[in-house]
Amino acid sequence: MSFVPANEGISNLKPYQPGKPMSELERELGITDIVKLASNENPLGCSDQVKAAVAAEISEIGRYPDGGGFILKDQIKTQFGFNHDQITLGNGSNDLLEMFARAFVSSNDSVVYSQHAFAVYALVTQAIDAQAIEVPAKGFSHDLDAMVEAVQDNTKLIFIANPNNPTGTWFEEAEFEVFMQKVPANVIVVLDEAYVEYFPENFNSLKFLSQYPNLIVSRTLSKCYGLAALRVGFALASVEVTDFLNRIRQPFNVNHLAMVAAVAALKDEAFIEKSREVNKAGMAQLEAGFKALGLNYVPSRANFILVDVQADPAQTFNALLKEGVIVRPVGIANHLRVSIGTEAENAKFLTALGKVLNLATQAVEAEA
Amino acid sequence: MSFVPANEGISNLKPYQPGKPMSELERELGITDIVKLASNENPLGCSDQVKAAVAAEISEIGRYPDGGGFILKDQIKTQFGFNHDQITLGNGSNDLLEMFARAFVSSNDSVVYSQHAFAVYALVTQAIDAQAIEVPAKGFSHDLDAMVEAVQDNTKLIFIANPNNPTGTWFEEAEFEVFMQKVPANVIVVLDEAYVEYFPENFNSLKFLSQYPNLIVSRTLSKCYGLAALRVGFALASVEVTDFLNRIRQPFNVNHLAMVAAVAALKDEAFIEKSREVNKAGMAQLEAGFKALGLNYVPSRANFILVDVQADPAQTFNALLKEGVIVRPVGIANHLRVSIGTEAENAKFLTALGKVLNLATQAVEAEA
Repeated sequence: MSFVPANEGISNLKPYQPGKPMSELERELGITDIVKLASNENPLGCSDQVKAAVAAEISEIGRYPDGGGFILKDQIKTQFGFNHDQITLGNGSNDLLEMFARAFVSSNDSVVYSQHAFAVYALVTQAIDAQAIEVPAKGFSHDLDAMVEAVQDNTKLIFIANPNNPTGTWFEEAEFEVFMQKVPANVIVVLDEAYVEYFPENFNSLKFLSQYPNLIVSRTLSKCYGLAALRVGFALASVEVTDFLNRIRQPFNVNHLAMVAAVAALKDEAFIEKSREVNKAGMAQLEAGFKALGLNYVPSRANFILVDVQADPAQTFNALLKEGVIVRPVGIANHLRVSIGTEAENAKFLTALGKVLNLATQAVEAEA
Repeated sequence: MSFVPANEGISNLKPYQPGKPMSELERELGITDIVKLASNENPLGCSDQVKAAVAAEISEIGRYPDGGGFILKDQIKTQFGFNHDQITLGNGSNDLLEMFARAFVSSNDSVVYSQHAFAVYALVTQAIDAQAIEVPAKGFSHDLDAMVEAVQDNTKLIFIANPNNPTGTWFEEAEFEVFMQKVPANVIVVLDEAYVEYFPENFNSLKFLSQYPNLIVSRTLSKCYGLAALRVGFALASVEVTDFLNRIRQPFNVNHLAMVAAVAALKDEAFIEKSREVNKAGMAQLEAGFKALGLNYVPSRANFILVDVQADPAQTFNALLKEGVIVRPVGIANHLRVSIGTEAENAKFLTALGKVLNLATQAVEAEA
């Protein structure tokens, strides 16, 4: 036993293995211009209005952020119609997911989530030494019926994602409504909508918040809004749930430049529209490319796609790396997750993939 | 009982009450140019090299931070001589203080800290529902002997600060050495050095790290380095303790602009030197001002000073606010904490203080 008795749960947590910075990687591999399609970032970067807003606030770096997040909550209120007392700000949505678990789950409780769900659900559950109930996926999707049935007396929280990462799968509003009706009222449901801006269906999760005080909707500005570097997420929930979350929120968890960037990002709806179009075109490009290579893929409603490379994911990942493309193995046999990039990035990836898999690309007809 | 069963400890936590943004406050009070001497920020702001470094990275806002913090750990290694595996990065030192408690303390354990210590020690202890053992201060200082004696069988962690916030008091290296010798080896000692850059004594805490694997030294870039807006802190500790901390650290807790700002800030030693000089002069200015007003103060080795206003702190705080000066009531009877500002800010504060306390300022001799 160690001289320092760390808490149960933490001793078994696998420490995060940091990847090398891109510049290091390029130097080691002796290549330049690596294409990164690994973290579901917006290939357009962020809005020019965001850049201007951040530049204008550099003179304020010496001052603490506004711990109440006034300007950002006001913008969220304007855009989504919720008062400040229903909004919790996070240092990215990772921070929020951790707060949800820490506020409502203790070591004698259990948490329900799906197989093939976002890896952080398991991590935050283990960090508090709670029991994880992982429900088998139906294909690559959440099995919402089975998830409700998996709820035990000691279950305090259910994590679901729509669309889900890393599979890109989704459920419809009617399915979600049935699910919410069945979940006991004292069990918190976290609906993680990190990729909702790309989700083209007619699904309004926010209207359920008035009906279900045990529902938390989690959003991030790291994806479509293009603020991954700055770490901003927000949660919408009942006043009661929000009050608990803000008791454990670190008062200055969201930094000042992130706050002003988020306000500018939320306001620039044209940038979101353009990002959706680039994603739609890129998704079609990758789907066509996979078909040409004879590869299956999981239909996705997010900004990434899971492709069956019919080979070992780690080996394929490494081979692609040497071709200057970073994708993501996600612990699913034969599959790799690839983020939708710009047209040029997608093309480079498809060429590299064909090469490393030794697949003869079928001729794709030139556009008429 | 609430429909949502939040964890023990959290239900009793007082939610953070956000202050109004400065712009709102100015509008409400009908004044401009409020002087803020409330959060121990560097009155010079941050280094110009920091501003340039941040401006140069605005184009990277769309990409995730480097979760391993490679460039920042390299700079810390260069400057302080510790390898990456002894460094933990935090979203400000608040994030680190929370990690320390969550990694090593559970609800059956106790935490020791001093009366009149940093408020966050109590908050992170309560959030995990652990027992708080608050040891009476000796005057306004930590009573290190009494703190060792307060250690129980279930004590897992001791928080000490040097200099201490909000009192500005300090202890010497010899006292610390005796303290460390007495603390049981399985109890974590957190030495919070948020204000160490202002501490003029010959106290090298870092040399104790090789001797005591249960020691954690916590630093922040929010104070003298002037990066409060961006949230960067770091902890130095044994490899074993660091490994545990990094298991619960959120992988992207430090944002990218904070990381590049921190590297630039650590490199700019001239800025730190200048900040120390401004602080020293400002401290002398306030001490002389208090003497002229006939007010006692607690001698401080930090960038703030606790003054006995011989009046209700909350009322005095509000009266000063109307004069356009924000200071901080810190829960100590008759006392207010004031951060050292620029010469002009300090002068405005002293004038306002004399006015609101109705004190006749004794004539201060003009400099020869």
